[in-house]
Amino acid sequence: IRYLLNGALPAQDVARLLESSPPKERKLLWELIDAKNEGEVLQYLSEDIGIQFLKNMDTERLIAVSEHFESDDLADLLQHLPEKVVKEVLASMSGQDRARVEALLSYSEDSAGGLMNTDTITIRPNITVDIAFRYLRRHTSLPDMTDNLLVVSRSDRLLGILPLTKLLVSDTNATIRDIMETEFTVITAETSASDVAHLFENMDLVSAPVIDGTTKKLLGRITIDDVVDVIRDEAEHSMLSMAGLDDDEDTFSPIMQTTRRRAVWLGINLITAFIASYVIGLFQNTLDQVVALAILMPIVASMGGIAGSQVLTLVIRGIALNQIGSTNARWLLNRELVVGLINGLLWASVIAALTALWFDNIKIAYIIAGATIINLLFAAATGTLLPILLKKIGIDPALAGSVILTTVTDVVGFLSFLGLATIFLI
Amino acid sequence: IRYLLNGALPAQDVARLLESSPPKERKLLWELIDAKNEGEVLQYLSEDIGIQFLKNMDTERLIAVSEHFESDDLADLLQHLPEKVVKEVLASMSGQDRARVEALLSYSEDSAGGLMNTDTITIRPNITVDIAFRYLRRHTSLPDMTDNLLVVSRSDRLLGILPLTKLLVSDTNATIRDIMETEFTVITAETSASDVAHLFENMDLVSAPVIDGTTKKLLGRITIDDVVDVIRDEAEHSMLSMAGLDDDEDTFSPIMQTTRRRAVWLGINLITAFIASYVIGLFQNTLDQVVALAILMPIVASMGGIAGSQVLTLVIRGIALNQIGSTNARWLLNRELVVGLINGLLWASVIAALTALWFDNIKIAYIIAGATIINLLFAAATGTLLPILLKKIGIDPALAGSVILTTVTDVVGFLSFLGLATIFLI
Ligand SMILES: [Mg+2]
Ligand SMILES: [Mg+2]
Ligand SMILES: [Mg+2]
Ligand SMILES: [Mg+2]
Ligand SMILES: [Mg+2]
Ligand SMILES: [Mg+2]
Ligand SMILES: [Mg+2]
Ligand SMILES: [Mg+2]
Ligand SMILES: [Mg+2]
Ligand SMILES: [Mg+2]
Ligand SMILES: [Mg+2]
Ligand SMILES: [Mg+2]
Ligand SMILES: [Mg+2]
Repeated sequence: IRYLLNGALPAQDVARLLESSPPKERKLLWELIDAKNEGEVLQYLSEDIGIQFLKNMDTERLIAVSEHFESDDLADLLQHLPEKVVKEVLASMSGQDRARVEALLSYSEDSAGGLMNTDTITIRPNITVDIAFRYLRRHTSLPDMTDNLLVVSRSDRLLGILPLTKLLVSDTNATIRDIMETEFTVITAETSASDVAHLFENMDLVSAPVIDGTTKKLLGRITIDDVVDVIRDEAEHSMLSMAGLDDDEDTFSPIMQTTRRRAVWLGINLITAFIASYVIGLFQNTLDQVVALAILMPIVASMGGIAGSQVLTLVIRGIALNQIGSTNARWLLNRELVVGLINGLLWASVIAALTALWFDNIKIAYIIAGATIINLLFAAATGTLLPILLKKIGIDPALAGSVILTTVTDVVGFLSFLGLATIFLI
Repeated sequence: IRYLLNGALPAQDVARLLESSPPKERKLLWELIDAKNEGEVLQYLSEDIGIQFLKNMDTERLIAVSEHFESDDLADLLQHLPEKVVKEVLASMSGQDRARVEALLSYSEDSAGGLMNTDTITIRPNITVDIAFRYLRRHTSLPDMTDNLLVVSRSDRLLGILPLTKLLVSDTNATIRDIMETEFTVITAETSASDVAHLFENMDLVSAPVIDGTTKKLLGRITIDDVVDVIRDEAEHSMLSMAGLDDDEDTFSPIMQTTRRRAVWLGINLITAFIASYVIGLFQNTLDQVVALAILMPIVASMGGIAGSQVLTLVIRGIALNQIGSTNARWLLNRELVVGLINGLLWASVIAALTALWFDNIKIAYIIAGATIINLLFAAATGTLLPILLKKIGIDPALAGSVILTTVTDVVGFLSFLGLATIFLI
C-alpha cells in the first residue's frame, strides 16, 4: 500500500481514496504517505478534509507542504488555521509570494477575491506579436489554464485580453493593441462567488481577470477549475440544506460530530411536531367520538406536505438560478394555485371514494375531500411565497423552507380535516 | 424591446431573459427576435427550451439557424427533432460537416460521444515547434477552448498532447515528439457523462480528447463548458428527483404539463399514505380507548422521517460522488445506527418528559420513548441500505428513495407506538 500511495497511484486518485475512507482508515493511510508527497495529495483533497490534516501538522512540515500550493489554494487553507501558524508560514515565504498570499487572505472566501489566484501573464499593448512570442519564451512554464494574456497599461489597468488561440493565428508584425479583444468579461473582487459561477456558466469561460472595484487595477484571475468546485458546492448546498445537513457534512465524519449536527435539526423538527400535535389535541373530543378521523388524518397532512415540497424545491432551484423576480412571482403563484386546485380536485375525489368504501360513511368522505383541497391550496401558496419571502429577509430558503412548509401543511391539514369534522359530524 | 433583443443585449442575456419568462411572454419575446439572431440566442438557451422553439420552425429556417451551431450542440438538438427534419437539415450541409454530425448523432446523449465535438487541432509528432507555429498561423481562427494540440500518428492514433502553454515556451528547434506530454487523460466514446464529469473535476481539465474504444482512433474532444452543464444537471437531478420532479421540469412550464407530472407523484404518495392509515386502522380499538395516542402518534412518525431523510440524502450524495462501496457501506451502517441510537435516546427522553407533563401519564411517556428509539434505528438502517440496494438493482435512489423511506418510517412509527400501547396500556 505504501508503494501505491507514494507514486504508483496519481495524487488525484490517492486523494479520492482518502475521501472515501472512514476516519480511522483515513488517518492510517495519511500516515503512510511520505512527507514529500503530502503536498501534492493535499492539493487534490477536498478542503474540509485537507484542513483536518493540516491542523495536526507541525509548522515546519506545513511550510514544506505549502510550497506545493498555488496562491489561491494556499490562501484558502491558511484561512482555516490559527493566526500564529499563519504568521509563521507567511514569514517563511519570499517577499513577493508573501505579499500575494496576504492580499488574497484579505478577501472573503465566497467572493471573487477569495476565488482568484495571482498567476497572471500580463503584456503591454504597444509590443508586436513577434516580441510577445519572445517574451513568453523567456518563461520556463506558463500557469495552468492560461487561455488569455492580459493586456495592461503602465499603471496596471486592464486594457484588453488576448486569447492564446488568437495570438497563434495573428500576423507576427501586428501590435498587441491591434489584435487584443476589448469586449470581455471582467470581474470585480467583491462579486459573489455565486455570481462568478453564473458568469462562467453563461459565457463559457475558462478564466476571467479580476480587478479592484475602485482603482480598476488588475488583481488576479479566476480559473474554471475553482468555479467548478463552486458550482458543485452550490448545487449540493440546496439538497443538503433541505435535509438540514451541513455543507461540509462529510460522508465519513466521526460519530460525535455527526450526532451533534443532526440532533439540532431533530430538535427543531420536534418543536414543529408538537405544534401539530397541539392542533390535534384541540379536537380531542371529536376524535374521541369518531375514531375513523384519527386513522385518516395523516393522509391529508401527507398529501399537503408532498405537494408543497414539490413547489418549494422548484422555487428554491429557480431562485438559485436567478430566474425568479417580482415580475414573474405572481405568474408562478397563479400557476401553482391552479395546479394545486386541479390536483386537489383529482386526488380529493379518489380519497373520498376510498374513504366512503372503507368506512361506509359518505359524510367523512366529503369532509376529507374538502380538507385535502384546502391543504393543497395552502401548500401551493406556501411553497411559492415562503422561499421568496425568506430570501428577501436574508434567510436561506433551502435551510428553513422545508421545516416551515411541513409545519404549515401539517397544521392546515389537521385543522381543516378535524375542524370540518367537528362542524359537520358532531 | 425589439432593439434590446436584437443586438443591444448580448445573446447570453437574451437567453437568460427567455428562460425566466412564463410561456406566453417567452413566445412573444421569441417572435420579436430577428431570424438572423435566432441562431446565436439558441446556442445559449437551455436545451429543453431551445427544442420547443426548433420544433415549431419550418425546415428552411432551421437550416439557416443550424449554421450558428458547433457540431456537438447541433447533434444534441437534432436528436430531439423528427427524423424527416433531421434528414433535410443534414442534406443541406457540406459533405464533411454532415459526416461529422452524423457520427455524433450515433452516440447516446449521456455518453462521452454525446458530449464531444469534432473541432480538434491535430499535428504530427515529427515536425518542429517552428513548423507547428507556421501551421497554426495558416488557420484564420482556432476553436474555442483549444488548450492542447493533439499529436496523432499517420493512422489517427493519439500519441500525445501538447499544451499551448508548453508550445509557447519551447525551443523552436525542438520536435513535437520531444516536448509533447505522453501521460494525459484520454476518454473513450462509451464512457458515461457522469464519469467524464468526475474526471474533469478531479484532474482540473479544460478539454480532453475522445478516442474510439476499439480502434483507438481519435474521434473528437470534450470541452469544460459542456461538462459544467453535466455537473449542474447531475447535482440538480438528485434534488429534483427527491421531490419527484422531472429533470427538465422548467420553472415556467405550462399548467397542464406541470399538473400531469405532479399528479403521478401525488398518486404514488397517496398509496403510501393509505398504507400508513391501514396500519393505524389495525389499532382502532386501542385508539378508541386512549385518545391521547391519536394526538401523539404523528410525532413518532415525523421524527423517524426526518432522521431517515438526513441519512438518505447523505448516502445519495455519497453514491453520486462515487464514495460509497461495499467496503465502507458496513462502516457507514454502523455509524448511522450509533448516531440514531444516541439521538434516539436524547430526543426520546425529551419527548417522554413533555408527554408526561402534558397528559400526566407516565406509561404513555415510556411507550412513546420506546417507539421513538425503535423508529430512529429503523430510519438509520433504511436510510443507509435502501439507496445502496436501489442503486444495485438499477433504480435511481434519488427518485424512489424518499417515498419508500417515509413509508417505512410512517409504518414503523405507527406500528411501534400503537403496538406498544396495545400491549402495555390496554
Ligand atoms: Mg480552492
Ligand atoms: Mg481563496
Ligand atoms: Mg455554458
Ligand atoms: Mg487547482
Ligand atoms: Mg486555483
Ligand atoms: Mg414535520
Ligand atoms: Mg438538459
Ligand atoms: Mg451541449
Ligand atoms: Mg451531443
Ligand atoms: Mg477540481
Ligand atoms: Mg457552447
Ligand atoms: Mg460544446
Ligand atoms: Mg408519506
